[in-house]
Amino acid sequence: MKISILKNVLNESIQHVSKAISSRTTIPILSGIKLDVNHQGVTLTASDTDISIQSFIPAEDEKQTIVQVDQPGSVVLPAKFFVEIIKKLPSQEIQMEVKENFQTFIAAGATEIQMVGLDPEEFPVLPSIEGNQTVSLPGDLLKNMIKQTVFSISTHETTPILTGVLWNLADNELKFTATDRHRLATRSAQLEGTEDVKFSNVVIAGKTLNELSKIIPDQNTLVDIVVADNQVLFKIDRVLFYSRILDGIYPDTSRIIPTTHKTELILDTKKLSESIDRAYLLSKEEKTNIVRMQTMEHGGIEISSSSSELGKVREELELIDFKGESLRISFNSKYMLDVLKIIESEQLMIAFTGVMSPIILKPIDDSQSMYVILPYRTTN
Amino acid sequence: MKISILKNVLNESIQHVSKAISSRTTIPILSGIKLDVNHQGVTLTASDTDISIQSFIPAEDEKQTIVQVDQPGSVVLPAKFFVEIIKKLPSQEIQMEVKENFQTFIAAGATEIQMVGLDPEEFPVLPSIEGNQTVSLPGDLLKNMIKQTVFSISTHETTPILTGVLWNLADNELKFTATDRHRLATRSAQLEGTEDVKFSNVVIAGKTLNELSKIIPDQNTLVDIVVADNQVLFKIDRVLFYSRILDGIYPDTSRIIPTTHKTELILDTKKLSESIDRAYLLSKEEKTNIVRMQTMEHGGIEISSSSSELGKVREELELIDFKGESLRISFNSKYMLDVLKIIESEQLMIAFTGVMSPIILKPIDDSQSMYVILPYRTTN
Repeated sequence: MKISILKNVLNESIQHVSKAISSRTTIPILSGIKLDVNHQGVTLTASDTDISIQSFIPAEDEKQTIVQVDQPGSVVLPAKFFVEIIKKLPSQEIQMEVKENFQTFIAAGATEIQMVGLDPEEFPVLPSIEGNQTVSLPGDLLKNMIKQTVFSISTHETTPILTGVLWNLADNELKFTATDRHRLATRSAQLEGTEDVKFSNVVIAGKTLNELSKIIPDQNTLVDIVVADNQVLFKIDRVLFYSRILDGIYPDTSRIIPTTHKTELILDTKKLSESIDRAYLLSKEEKTNIVRMQTMEHGGIEISSSSSELGKVREELELIDFKGESLRISFNSKYMLDVLKIIESEQLMIAFTGVMSPIILKPIDDSQSMYVILPYRTTN
Repeated sequence: MKISILKNVLNESIQHVSKAISSRTTIPILSGIKLDVNHQGVTLTASDTDISIQSFIPAEDEKQTIVQVDQPGSVVLPAKFFVEIIKKLPSQEIQMEVKENFQTFIAAGATEIQMVGLDPEEFPVLPSIEGNQTVSLPGDLLKNMIKQTVFSISTHETTPILTGVLWNLADNELKFTATDRHRLATRSAQLEGTEDVKFSNVVIAGKTLNELSKIIPDQNTLVDIVVADNQVLFKIDRVLFYSRILDGIYPDTSRIIPTTHKTELILDTKKLSESIDRAYLLSKEEKTNIVRMQTMEHGGIEISSSSSELGKVREELELIDFKGESLRISFNSKYMLDVLKIIESEQLMIAFTGVMSPIILKPIDDSQSMYVILPYRTTN
């Protein structure tokens, strides 16, 4: 393998694939990035077995020659050092040549690097994914759907399936669900032209979705998603992102979502968020994060928390609308804040069926997302 | 105590004094901020016994009423909660009232807070400092002098005196010295009108100087420094910053600074820095950070490092000037980078007396600072 390549293009590809590198891998070859060179260009691959990312650098784009290929070939280079050194090379043009025993020579300006390479034959082969279950959606929509659900996943490894986000697609509706048994987040989106595609129980690790989000550009990019038996493939421009589907059956969450309610409040999202945040500051000192909310006789609601060591916080907040019975309820304010942070709507609806029933939160101008928080059983 | 006070002014004062709050204090009263109110204004005090910071808020400044004092008094409030909640209060005007058992009521907008206060009589009294040894210097000069020396202090608690920066003042020259026995940094400044002031062996903890730096504003402020037997007081606007002087005698560092040298190189600071940085990337994988520098026959120098697992880096760098004998020397590249980062001069001089003698670095256009790095004894 012998090439000369542009630094900024190589660097961008390295940044993409390096998101699949785990610092804790016990398999030496997986701490490397694989380079495959042919006359079309260079393909970089990295994998931690759960995630694999592949990025293709074409030899030429419409504007310029990016890679000059003198000799095709492959090598695996130590990721950590490779990632850091390429960024810091002194010139835009980089020469790379693989010699005996995969010793790799990199030259840029007056800098010469000799890197211990590994045998590319040892690198795991990426899964081949049959492409019959394919949907496309805009990158920013996908990023939003991830952001608005992934915070509700479980972080406990005792229930691995709950560390992922459930994806269902049926009747042109893609739906994400996440729950840690104390709270739940759902977000749906209408997709067009997916009548023939249907899947359920596709569960993707939250960690993986966060890495995927970082790779999706902010500009309007279309992401192609291919769902196979135990793998999902995301195609973003010239990047292929493979993820394992988590094993197991995702629990049925429909039963914990109340279908009726006795109290309905409409509130200003920002004001509620700031108010809960102040009560949270005190509640977190007690480790429980318990905050109380109660309707007041003269209208409005009271938000309060207390700590035996520090004192009390009490707030009054106006209601935009109020329907149904008065109530007094306690909940984990951290869970409520997590929801309030990602709601983009200026107003939100909170619905209750009783002191011990799940609390429902919905943005006013968006019927596609819903959040549920289980209340605390408190003595007073 | 009963006042109403402007949020942004109170918040700024809290930010200043809270730098003296240690999260690991075992003395409960020291986890608090003391407020003393009289008709002139409010004084905030915080202390971790090593550092004490006091900030005064006048009742009025030229523009407006800042504090309306209804009743003077004092209280100690839990710092962590107080710091966080004041920032997040919903209105600019804050009411504070201390009632029975130091229970403190804070009201702002529709928010009411009841805080458990502590007895201000239990708060330690700040040292009284006799003001005969006083110097003034511009805040940005002091910040620079700290930045250009403090990185060389020792982080080992086994030699407490070396965890500080040595201050000496004589003949109108203020000199800072820091060393961890492997490297040394000195920075001097000419002060005017300090003929009558002289001190030596004033050693101030590096940690303290870093906190002090954060409080000094970037605009041209004059800092008054009062040196007493075991305390130093810094006066910055309305903030008083008290620091303990470290116990013990600072070692004589004059012997480790070579007075003659056999080789002298003039280099471009930025180019050398980038070159050492690349060699460092590899050297740090070996934990030793060893980088080699050697003069080349055809002029210029070679910078190189190697790692058995990863490979080698080799660089050539032009010299702006070269005097004396050729050489080959090994050193800790992290120490060299630390110096290169804080040198503001575009060019620097590196001087050597031999493979095992200290390396001297000096900015070309600044005779007031000097850095020394001890070389490594290597076999090849």
